[in-house]
Amino acid sequence: LVSVIERLKGKKSFLAAGLMSGTSMDGIDVALVRLTAAAESSGVDLVGFGTSPYPEELRGTLRDLAYGGQCSTEDLAVLHTGVAVAFANAFHATCRDVEVKAADVDFIGSHGQTVAHVPPTSGGTNLIAGTLQLGPPGMIAVLTGVMTVGDFRSADIALGGQGAPLAPYADYVLRRSRTQNRLILNIGGIANVTYLPANCSVGEVIAFDTGPGNMVVDELYRVLYPGEGSYDKLNELLTAAEPSHTLVERFLDMSYFGVAPPKSAGHREFGGRLAWEFLSQAESGGLRKVDTLASAVTLTTRSIHSALKAYVMPHGEIDEIFVTGGGSRNPIMMRELGMMFDPIVVRPIDDLGVPAEAKEAVDFAVLARESLLCRPNVLNAVTGASRASVLGTIALGA
Amino acid sequence: LVSVIERLKGKKSFLAAGLMSGTSMDGIDVALVRLTAAAESSGVDLVGFGTSPYPEELRGTLRDLAYGGQCSTEDLAVLHTGVAVAFANAFHATCRDVEVKAADVDFIGSHGQTVAHVPPTSGGTNLIAGTLQLGPPGMIAVLTGVMTVGDFRSADIALGGQGAPLAPYADYVLRRSRTQNRLILNIGGIANVTYLPANCSVGEVIAFDTGPGNMVVDELYRVLYPGEGSYDKLNELLTAAEPSHTLVERFLDMSYFGVAPPKSAGHREFGGRLAWEFLSQAESGGLRKVDTLASAVTLTTRSIHSALKAYVMPHGEIDEIFVTGGGSRNPIMMRELGMMFDPIVVRPIDDLGVPAEAKEAVDFAVLARESLLCRPNVLNAVTGASRASVLGTIALGA
Repeated sequence: LVSVIERLKGKKSFLAAGLMSGTSMDGIDVALVRLTAAAESSGVDLVGFGTSPYPEELRGTLRDLAYGGQCSTEDLAVLHTGVAVAFANAFHATCRDVEVKAADVDFIGSHGQTVAHVPPTSGGTNLIAGTLQLGPPGMIAVLTGVMTVGDFRSADIALGGQGAPLAPYADYVLRRSRTQNRLILNIGGIANVTYLPANCSVGEVIAFDTGPGNMVVDELYRVLYPGEGSYDKLNELLTAAEPSHTLVERFLDMSYFGVAPPKSAGHREFGGRLAWEFLSQAESGGLRKVDTLASAVTLTTRSIHSALKAYVMPHGEIDEIFVTGGGSRNPIMMRELGMMFDPIVVRPIDDLGVPAEAKEAVDFAVLARESLLCRPNVLNAVTGASRASVLGTIALGA
Repeated sequence: LVSVIERLKGKKSFLAAGLMSGTSMDGIDVALVRLTAAAESSGVDLVGFGTSPYPEELRGTLRDLAYGGQCSTEDLAVLHTGVAVAFANAFHATCRDVEVKAADVDFIGSHGQTVAHVPPTSGGTNLIAGTLQLGPPGMIAVLTGVMTVGDFRSADIALGGQGAPLAPYADYVLRRSRTQNRLILNIGGIANVTYLPANCSVGEVIAFDTGPGNMVVDELYRVLYPGEGSYDKLNELLTAAEPSHTLVERFLDMSYFGVAPPKSAGHREFGGRLAWEFLSQAESGGLRKVDTLASAVTLTTRSIHSALKAYVMPHGEIDEIFVTGGGSRNPIMMRELGMMFDPIVVRPIDDLGVPAEAKEAVDFAVLARESLLCRPNVLNAVTGASRASVLGTIALGA
């Protein structure tokens, strides 16, 4: 460790990689970035980016588990390895594509693959809580030969926090503006927001999971249109659809939406079970398939809108909204948000210089930098933990 | 990390803790040790030692899982936390008992709780393999405030190794002799040996799991004498028993015993399933309950004896055998071993200055020291991995 650290210490900037796979398990995102060593530095250059799909069988197993399937601990041990190998392969593939030598990469920040996230329900020291990301950093490190930081969520959970969201710290470092009150809206499987008032300090950041992102829409699309996986097709279907506001209203009554932050969500709240209930109510209301999809889209946009009205706007104005995650590529979702928030402009995060597809992976490279330099990399006011900590465990790969 | 490392670098000796819970899940062992920074140094003083039982319910759940029970990933995420809390509490309890301030401890090496171990079956790069230790180091670190190294087995598995045994590295560092050909025999749930020829180099060490330790005996005792958990009672029963050599011979035919090292074993090979088969054959042979127990003891001693004859003695002589683990406290097992190996003296490891109860926990403090100083801490000739690596992932606890 000493020699490894000496090497890092001498550097003013790093070549780093961020590895991310979200709850939708669409693929493993790899961002190669050059970033400065200085704390709170926003100097990040995206050197390269790539996405590698999971092997089909592995993805199927992971999805089953994330949706509540049972397994033995032996199954899970083997899956840990399978995910680590897939992450390492994804890293190597992107390095090859963008002609970067793996040996030149200083470190990797790997989120791993979440297959369970159980935040404390009553906050404080209630430890009937946990989080499970597959793909041990120790394995990724030896498979890539690059020092790897992983397991970013555990420590925050142990300190009574939600272990999520983690992106707000990176948003604060990389994306706050001197003059604009900015909102970063990530619509992944789950939707979450980071509110960054102009020129804000760490303590002024507000962030939380608003509720479903694409999770319910994706699940319904999979069930209603089996085998037609393309998102272009989904977007085409949605253009000819009409949401049922009665159905949406009914689901906006869910207890999650009434709880003030800190809060975080996952498959547990908005996964398969909810999608099936949504579908069953849509069917008993005689809704067309496309209208059921459209209603799920509106559940997402409406829940985002009301969350911001309830928990952000009372604290300050929003001048601009930058959308990231898969939702930023859904024109219907973007149009609905544009209308709801008018006159605030809703734009894809690409306008801030990072492709939506690469954003989260970039964030984990930044979080890993802080782990290695022993700087707290979580906003505990956001997660609800008793204190900020240096998240991430470090595998040397030596 | 930099500041943390500066602090470690300046030190010639460390106060460290090793945390261990074996496959039998009898309790969490905590060894507080003072050890020098120098590589290959055998200077370890045991400052204090304690064992804390798991909360009853947690232990029951862990045992079910280790014996092949099914669970959801959410269950497992919560168990991860439960084990981390139990480990942190055990650490604090021992610190209190021996009047050491937690803040004075430089680092913790935590084995965690194994609930699955699936070594590669065909060696090399076959990665249908994995290992799962509960109790993330990231959680233990923030719950104790002490830098914690954990997850020692993953990287070796990723390099095609068995991820076990790990004790041989510590045995090599702490227990080799200049003049004696020494064998360290650990009879825990599984039995494993480390052969240390006099004045040996790393490459001369031979080590592997010989097969069952106390696992089969314990399981049978639990089933045949429910509610009479005391080991004194077990030892008393055994004094009046007679093993069935026919039964033992039959089980010595198991394929595991015929495989040359590297090899490692766990619940999969010698857990509940095997115990039940052993019991069923004993019952159909009309064996008394006590004789069934005695036969399981002899299965352990005979499998150790034949493993040493087949895989150690052809490489060199054994002058002395030091026994550690629960088996060193079983007078019948010790007597059988003494008779089988006569004239080689079989002694408890306590004669080397470390109580058998503390030995493995001490080992993990030593392994953690190597992780932090970036020194390889595994014998890859023993595990079968493609290279030696620096095992363990580091959580700062900051």
